[in-house]
Amino acid sequence: MSRFWTPLVQRLDPYVPGEQPQDQPYIKLNTNENPYPPSPKVAKALRDFDAGRLRLYPDPESGRLRQALAERHGVHPRQVFVGNGSDEVLAHSFQAFFQRPQPLLFPEISYSFYPVYCQLYGIEARRIPLREGFGIAVEDYSGDCGGVILPNPNAPTSRLLSLDDIARLCALQPDRVVVIDEAYIDFGGDSAVALLDRHPNLLVIQTFSKSRSLAGIRLGLAIGSETLIEGLQRVKNSFNSYPVDALAQALALASLEDEDYFRGTCRRIVDTRERSREALQALGFEVLPSAANFLFARPPGGKAGALYRALKRAGILVRWFDSPGIDDWLRITVGTDEEMTQLISRLEKTLSVAK
Amino acid sequence: MSRFWTPLVQRLDPYVPGEQPQDQPYIKLNTNENPYPPSPKVAKALRDFDAGRLRLYPDPESGRLRQALAERHGVHPRQVFVGNGSDEVLAHSFQAFFQRPQPLLFPEISYSFYPVYCQLYGIEARRIPLREGFGIAVEDYSGDCGGVILPNPNAPTSRLLSLDDIARLCALQPDRVVVIDEAYIDFGGDSAVALLDRHPNLLVIQTFSKSRSLAGIRLGLAIGSETLIEGLQRVKNSFNSYPVDALAQALALASLEDEDYFRGTCRRIVDTRERSREALQALGFEVLPSAANFLFARPPGGKAGALYRALKRAGILVRWFDSPGIDDWLRITVGTDEEMTQLISRLEKTLSVAK
Repeated sequence: MSRFWTPLVQRLDPYVPGEQPQDQPYIKLNTNENPYPPSPKVAKALRDFDAGRLRLYPDPESGRLRQALAERHGVHPRQVFVGNGSDEVLAHSFQAFFQRPQPLLFPEISYSFYPVYCQLYGIEARRIPLREGFGIAVEDYSGDCGGVILPNPNAPTSRLLSLDDIARLCALQPDRVVVIDEAYIDFGGDSAVALLDRHPNLLVIQTFSKSRSLAGIRLGLAIGSETLIEGLQRVKNSFNSYPVDALAQALALASLEDEDYFRGTCRRIVDTRERSREALQALGFEVLPSAANFLFARPPGGKAGALYRALKRAGILVRWFDSPGIDDWLRITVGTDEEMTQLISRLEKTLSVAK
Repeated sequence: MSRFWTPLVQRLDPYVPGEQPQDQPYIKLNTNENPYPPSPKVAKALRDFDAGRLRLYPDPESGRLRQALAERHGVHPRQVFVGNGSDEVLAHSFQAFFQRPQPLLFPEISYSFYPVYCQLYGIEARRIPLREGFGIAVEDYSGDCGGVILPNPNAPTSRLLSLDDIARLCALQPDRVVVIDEAYIDFGGDSAVALLDRHPNLLVIQTFSKSRSLAGIRLGLAIGSETLIEGLQRVKNSFNSYPVDALAQALALASLEDEDYFRGTCRRIVDTRERSREALQALGFEVLPSAANFLFARPPGGKAGALYRALKRAGILVRWFDSPGIDDWLRITVGTDEEMTQLISRLEKTLSVAK
């Protein structure tokens, strides 16, 4: 606390990302990173990049990258926004669309950064309880509000809504922006980009951090009507003219030029996920059906916190949220087959000792 | 305009960075970029970077980079904040320290992003007129306010305040944060970091975009008391956990390992600046004494707008601000000797035709 801080900053309760301890090597299954490196085309673009160019500012509008993204998603470049990771794109979206007197609606169990953005921009958060089995019922998101945001698939539950559900949600709130946060969509869902023609209030947010193995470059994007994208541009150009650096633009472009590699790694992760799900179930875990690159799993007997700590001592990091309703569950990133085999083997030992 | 935009976003009047036309090659003297490439150590760090690492999130705290910056500036790492360009660091500073009922004080002629941040965060802007010859008198920044910000040297005037002046300014506002924006300090000024021990309300902001030839990686920093830096961390961790990507962290570190190169390029730019100043004066320009990597110059007879356009047609970009009080001046970035010779030669021709 300090008299120099504004009242807002004194009240903030910042987001805490997954831990990154440096005390020993870990099998890292706690931040939903991709276990595979980015495409060899990314490595080549990195090697070929002329360091002398770094003396210049990057293209403030990321023109070539937005063009390539537009082509991939079948939209106009003016329907594409890019930012310094999807967290920045989310932050700008809160300010551009949700900073209103009415509350923002989002699922009670969801990405834990949403309530932090609400604090940062003075937005009232209305958390909507989930239904049976951590399900989202879109009819719970009707009525007067300042907007709606939800991840699809949801995090950390990994559960997926259908495009029909998303379309119904957009129709329930025609005068408010509905943000669908698709960080994990490439691992088993259909993107709501397909609904944009019929729903001018829909904004879809994606990231290069998960399915494209590029968490290290910080690249997030939004796709929506030209009007919504212009709103994001107004905020961006009032915050930072050049949010996406020259290397991130070049490497993201290179990634988009290798769709085969992208689809191949996504498929491998989905295969590993399904095998890991069966192995966890065989150990007595309850595991939700996942459309993401992680599994949300309840160990036999609950006690997820103790199991998280035991795994950490054994050199395996998973994520445990000490929050009501999910504190007897673990969120386990899908790693390589080898990593998941080690995880299962360690769980077998730990659980048999506990018996 | 759109009903989907929040009232704030409807009112915004975003910042416009220097133009980057792509229709022909230009001698680019309009965005204060460094004419020299970054250190060869940066090029080597780029070549040696393992693209496979990009699948992982970067260190959210930029620990090694903050440690290196702390050593260079003789402060504790907890006194150093880094962000995605100094524009992001400035934006967070406005929210962390200036978002108050009282107005923020800054010079009437100054970095034109400051009033935009005020709009973005709902801060009242009180512009303080300059004195004779575009001078800043620190006693004009006393009285009740929400804080003070000014660039030193000032932009686009290039004029420098002494450390005595900065110390007096900090003492005038002991209960408010004073931000000194030192984007250009390495080209002829003394950093106010030297004053931090005596002024806990002082925050110094710098950038790698100018003197370190790294505008392309987006790296800005703030140095201040641990309390002020903690305030910035609270905002950053409520906005984007990972603002500085893995490559930017690695390349900035490499740049800090080559102080000889850094000092050498700064010296060359200062030498070129002084020669260019004399050449402009010989052509009848009024030129302010500069402590930056640009010159603020009034062409003989004024008519800066016409001259800006004539130079652009001839393939040379300089910056002209169509704003009261400075609209008969040009801001000219100091390029290489060769580029400045071409500029002077073109000015000779253009001005003799105009006679």
